[in-house]
Amino acid sequence: MFEPVYLDHNATTPIDPAVLAAMLPWLESLCGNASSRHEYGRRARQALDEARQKVAAALGAHPTEVIFASGGSEANNLFIKGAAASRKPGLIAVSAVEHPCVLKPAAQLARQGWTLCEIAVDGEGRIDAEDYLRALEARPALVSVMAANNETGVAHDVTALASAARASGAWFHSDAVQAFGKLPLDFRALNAAGVHALTVSAHKINGPKGAAALVVDKRIELHPQIAGGGHERGLRSGTENLPAIVGFGVAAELAVQGLAERAKHLRRLREHLESGLAALGAHIFAASADRLPNTSYFAFNDIDGETLVGKLDRAGFAVASGAACSSANPEPSHVLRAMGVAPEFARGALRVSLGAGNELADIEQFIKAVQLAVGRLQSLPAMAV
Amino acid sequence: MFEPVYLDHNATTPIDPAVLAAMLPWLESLCGNASSRHEYGRRARQALDEARQKVAAALGAHPTEVIFASGGSEANNLFIKGAAASRKPGLIAVSAVEHPCVLKPAAQLARQGWTLCEIAVDGEGRIDAEDYLRALEARPALVSVMAANNETGVAHDVTALASAARASGAWFHSDAVQAFGKLPLDFRALNAAGVHALTVSAHKINGPKGAAALVVDKRIELHPQIAGGGHERGLRSGTENLPAIVGFGVAAELAVQGLAERAKHLRRLREHLESGLAALGAHIFAASADRLPNTSYFAFNDIDGETLVGKLDRAGFAVASGAACSSANPEPSHVLRAMGVAPEFARGALRVSLGAGNELADIEQFIKAVQLAVGRLQSLPAMAV
Repeated sequence: MFEPVYLDHNATTPIDPAVLAAMLPWLESLCGNASSRHEYGRRARQALDEARQKVAAALGAHPTEVIFASGGSEANNLFIKGAAASRKPGLIAVSAVEHPCVLKPAAQLARQGWTLCEIAVDGEGRIDAEDYLRALEARPALVSVMAANNETGVAHDVTALASAARASGAWFHSDAVQAFGKLPLDFRALNAAGVHALTVSAHKINGPKGAAALVVDKRIELHPQIAGGGHERGLRSGTENLPAIVGFGVAAELAVQGLAERAKHLRRLREHLESGLAALGAHIFAASADRLPNTSYFAFNDIDGETLVGKLDRAGFAVASGAACSSANPEPSHVLRAMGVAPEFARGALRVSLGAGNELADIEQFIKAVQLAVGRLQSLPAMAV
Repeated sequence: MFEPVYLDHNATTPIDPAVLAAMLPWLESLCGNASSRHEYGRRARQALDEARQKVAAALGAHPTEVIFASGGSEANNLFIKGAAASRKPGLIAVSAVEHPCVLKPAAQLARQGWTLCEIAVDGEGRIDAEDYLRALEARPALVSVMAANNETGVAHDVTALASAARASGAWFHSDAVQAFGKLPLDFRALNAAGVHALTVSAHKINGPKGAAALVVDKRIELHPQIAGGGHERGLRSGTENLPAIVGFGVAAELAVQGLAERAKHLRRLREHLESGLAALGAHIFAASADRLPNTSYFAFNDIDGETLVGKLDRAGFAVASGAACSSANPEPSHVLRAMGVAPEFARGALRVSLGAGNELADIEQFIKAVQLAVGRLQSLPAMAV
């Protein structure tokens, strides 16, 4: 089968063969329910404990701080709504560029007596410091700012933001789904600075779909969003998805082990990509901000992003026109709108998100394909006249 | 490795080799994000659609009525809390023998202005008809009665219960996690009788952990419990767990195909088991009720269930002392308490739940192991005197 070059790793990643190898025994032979008190259950429980230790170790957290969930969206909803349920309705402050799975639960709270404050970003997608301090002055009960943005790749200084939020008494959460495996994360240090909870997900780090974690300071009182048998310290009920969790453990180990070298490789590829794109006349969004090493977000004048994605797809390159989760939505990216990008130009946005498996040759071929596609598309309006 | 005989299929089941074979390509090579608009995304979307069709077909539902979730606990929480959020606080009526993942969300509603009514069961675990009609007279907004109980195996006449609830204007939900694959289920017919939603789960029908569905009448307005990118018609956000969902599709097909034959095999094994247990002096709970063909729940006088589970485990048999999800809980089963069983006797309860892979020889050996273990345990008090 024809295999296009995959340049959409912020949407999802292939499972690492070592991760799958660790999962297979739990898929092939009987995988007990970890709550069962017999041999099968005990084996499952032991594997669950080991995976929890691995995820905790990869993040500098204690295993008891790791709450497994089915995905990043669930973990973000658990923090936002679970923390809100144990505080009096007040102010929740989230950045305007959060993923919808933070923005939407925050909007749900706003319909339940909470006040929602969206923190502005500047033209490069960075948190607007003045706007952030203004939000803190209003003493929010909850603050959520992502460690890195899924579209632009902009990395936020979560340590500094959390430190500043401390005085307000806020519980500070960070969606680190995109940062994990691409930037170093140390929950112990982050927690000391004032970060109370982090969300991470397996399928963004070459692990399987179906496993994620909320890493959370145990002093934070959360109400479970999935109530039932009392799994995960009562914070997330439901039979543990052991094969996926086992895979998550291994993926987390690998994500941390090769981080520096992988980041260097990705950064080199991206520099090559962006100098090629710039030569073709592309505007690179957030180019001067601190960014994840793998992400490039750009647009060409008078070119529709969806159309370009389609042309590149037919040319054998898989890229995104916006965040994968909202690509069914024809609206221009809320991230670019928050950055003040004109809607017409934002509609042209394309995201390339690289993975460790990408090579320099992929990038060179990709630039050629972009050149061809853009040349054809830019000549169209003239022809249509 | 030593492989005990697995007699705990109501807790979880082994993945059918045909199910795993269907999943493997999605684990081994790149499994795109089904929201992505490129070749990988389209392949994933197509597989997602096919799995949805299979699950729908197995349940006599329309594919658009199938909302995928990560597990039965999540799907039950989605119905209970999601439906409650779109109705004015009122009365919610659930049977006293529901799984904790129905009882706990119902209890959460009771702390938010709702009134919780637990419908009584009789000594055989059957819904108390008078109590049920009394609950309906109070005009509940939501009713949830499971299709079959996970501990006793008692099957409830959901069609009749839903029909009776229609006049009250209630939205009627049934947790069919244990019934699916063991009893015929036809959502079209159930829906015509007044059932608005069913919960089913993959890992109870020889499918993988990490996939389940809420099958729901589209006239029912649900609020998402996991909000975000708007997946699953906006009712359940988060990247779809495609490998698990693909496996669920195949497992659902298989669950229905072999149902009658499998039920016959299981019933024959259980009859053999229960006549053997009765000869040893066991009391079989709910023996005269309509039950799932695979489930036997019993106790011996003066014998602790946990102790017996441990002894049988060492003898090579995996059984449960109560519902798997709450076996960390030393309290006697809430199901047996609702049936009026004395707590001391309820503490002796053991559950055997058979699977298609079990053989008559397993049952014969199991009965011998029970005889040995019970004989030793019953002689203990005398020796201690």
